[in-house]
Amino acid sequence: MDWLDKVKWPADGLVPAIAQEAGSGRVLSLAWMNREALQRTVESGEAHYWSRSRKKLWHKGEESGHVQKIKSVRLDCDEDVVLLEVEQRGGIACHTGRHSCFYQQLKDGQWVAVEPVLKDPREIYGK
Amino acid sequence: MDWLDKVKWPADGLVPAIAQEAGSGRVLSLAWMNREALQRTVESGEAHYWSRSRKKLWHKGEESGHVQKIKSVRLDCDEDVVLLEVEQRGGIACHTGRHSCFYQQLKDGQWVAVEPVLKDPREIYGK
Repeated sequence: MDWLDKVKWPADGLVPAIAQEAGSGRVLSLAWMNREALQRTVESGEAHYWSRSRKKLWHKGEESGHVQKIKSVRLDCDEDVVLLEVEQRGGIACHTGRHSCFYQQLKDGQWVAVEPVLKDPREIYGK
Repeated sequence: MDWLDKVKWPADGLVPAIAQEAGSGRVLSLAWMNREALQRTVESGEAHYWSRSRKKLWHKGEESGHVQKIKSVRLDCDEDVVLLEVEQRGGIACHTGRHSCFYQQLKDGQWVAVEPVLKDPREIYGK
């Protein structure tokens, strides 16, 4: 895959991948991709990442159903960051049940949760 | 600074910081912040990063004038990624003279430059 060679994979093999929602333009999540994750993302049309905590390939939404359908894939000028334009199934990208993972905002020296939980995580993950 | 302690700084001390343009919602850049960079960003109201290539603190726009004025600062659910809402001075975030750093798009197995150069980098950097 020539296009995979264009990416400047760092020593640990992982590049950041930003998921931005088509239409709304909201930044939903940042996760990490190795070469295989990016290849599977493009081939399947659904976001795959490398889970650093579980140390394995991760098809986002495999448990929750909240997959990210790929609309476009971009690469930055340094060729070591990926930007995905996605359609977020279920409207929930975050494991906390929120639309976006970036729900904490700095206000007067405090991080404040500024987005509602749309669905109880226990319900999402069936626990 | 209590709010700086909330960030889960990794072993190398650097977290990814996404800059998203207020209004347009365009993702402009991803750069890296250490603790000092994030503190200076919040205190000065202009984006500061850690330059991994130059190994020093970097006030973005210090040479080009293309500073990023901070409108809001967010943190993700894992508390190790920062999302900045910015006003991009000069309308150019990329050192190639383009609006966004994410100007290469994957099309039919090829990375294609899909955004124009708005200003010649030699003109921007006076070289």
